[in-house]
Amino acid sequence: MRVVLAKSAGFCFGVKRATNMAFEAAESNARICSLGPIIHSPQLVERLERKGVSVVREVDEIEGRAVIIRSHGVNAEVLDQIKARSLCVVDATCPFVQKAQEHAAQLSAEGYTVVIVGEPEHPEVAGIFSYARQGDAFVVENPKEAAALSPCKKIGVVAQTTQSYDNFRDIVTLCLDKAKELRVYNTICNATTVRQEEAKLIADQVELMLVVGGFNSANTTRLAHICAQSQNRTHHVETAEELKAEWFSGIETVGVTAGASTPQWIIDEVLERIENMGK
Amino acid sequence: MRVVLAKSAGFCFGVKRATNMAFEAAESNARICSLGPIIHSPQLVERLERKGVSVVREVDEIEGRAVIIRSHGVNAEVLDQIKARSLCVVDATCPFVQKAQEHAAQLSAEGYTVVIVGEPEHPEVAGIFSYARQGDAFVVENPKEAAALSPCKKIGVVAQTTQSYDNFRDIVTLCLDKAKELRVYNTICNATTVRQEEAKLIADQVELMLVVGGFNSANTTRLAHICAQSQNRTHHVETAEELKAEWFSGIETVGVTAGASTPQWIIDEVLERIENMGK
Repeated sequence: MRVVLAKSAGFCFGVKRATNMAFEAAESNARICSLGPIIHSPQLVERLERKGVSVVREVDEIEGRAVIIRSHGVNAEVLDQIKARSLCVVDATCPFVQKAQEHAAQLSAEGYTVVIVGEPEHPEVAGIFSYARQGDAFVVENPKEAAALSPCKKIGVVAQTTQSYDNFRDIVTLCLDKAKELRVYNTICNATTVRQEEAKLIADQVELMLVVGGFNSANTTRLAHICAQSQNRTHHVETAEELKAEWFSGIETVGVTAGASTPQWIIDEVLERIENMGK
Repeated sequence: MRVVLAKSAGFCFGVKRATNMAFEAAESNARICSLGPIIHSPQLVERLERKGVSVVREVDEIEGRAVIIRSHGVNAEVLDQIKARSLCVVDATCPFVQKAQEHAAQLSAEGYTVVIVGEPEHPEVAGIFSYARQGDAFVVENPKEAAALSPCKKIGVVAQTTQSYDNFRDIVTLCLDKAKELRVYNTICNATTVRQEEAKLIADQVELMLVVGGFNSANTTRLAHICAQSQNRTHHVETAEELKAEWFSGIETVGVTAGASTPQWIIDEVLERIENMGK
């Protein structure tokens, strides 16, 4: 059996950085917690918990511990609360997400109606949205929602870093119909596009496609969806334990990719298990 | 014979303003000239000449006279030359064109690669272009040219005031593919769109369509082209003298519109001649 592993599988820059910061902080701080799971990988979160990094949901639960801000960032109000309590902060917000937050704040301060292209429920988007607090701001998920926006003088647009460029482009074009001035920051992270394009290329040429990553990870789920469009024998798994022998029956080529929050050791375990399937 | 006259036929705001300024200046100045024809109507230019407003092509020809800047505006360098000679200036640049010039200058000063959507040979476009003198600037006429632009960090876009919105939109969308930041000022003047849409509606419901205006007027020529797509019995005429009796044979409904630089008296003469055709 031939296995094709995507070069772009696994941790992106921001996740690698956040994870390293969390492990380093765990080494040097006796009492530390992360506000929400540091990344969307239950297995990695568990490893960190074993190192003493517990997950809290609210600022009230931090109680004198140092706190890690996860790669998705947090709402501006939450950061204000943390600062007001003079807590020790390890800010692992992805620098690309931070850029989107900064642009949202700047556009809002300069009087633009701010449009954030993204999923309204995603914590990264909620965070970016919270920075556009000086005026009107909208989270727009699809062209239909963009078409329903009211006309206004100035629209400023930023994107969730993991958005598809095509969706972003369609929404920007519709925003142009609504305003006399349009200012757009393309804050989409290339890593997502590169990963998606490579996954599609691999899915097109194999007989079975495996997408590894947290079921709570939006980018992994989207990756699995993209692969399924090219290859209907696509499975989204979180760990090697979920692989089923019958999937591999009669299969000669397997493709493997993984989401931005999938640790390398989980990818390695999946590869090892596939190798053993062939024996 | 029923005649449908477009409400939007004739002078737009900027042309009306420039023409009034020119006639007023002619009343109060013994020696005055306009740098280029004040608007693209040979008949109006002739009337002004009879009032003493001659047309010069170069700054060198002004020779101590007061000078009228026409509605299209002039190149920044030309304005610099005029100012350097301390000439008396009547600036009849259309305020909407001036806005486009100001945005081009501001975008250029702020480090944007400036894209001017328009016809490279048009004096208005040459003027706007000249204001984007602090960095890279390109005149882009169609999507094909936009697609050929090199990627860059920041693109700023403005439009020739008489551009079609669809072309502008397509070019803006392609610019988004090229840059991380895109800033767009939609400087298209609504008068053009309103005039074009009304002309199309009328052309659709009449048997003969007449478009009145200078053959050297880009917006009149475009108007005639739009009408011809709906009604193949469309004629572009500059004056009433050009109307031909045979065009009206068997015709019961005639539509009339006119470009932004067509004087009211020429439209009136055309209407009068049509009325006499029916007798």
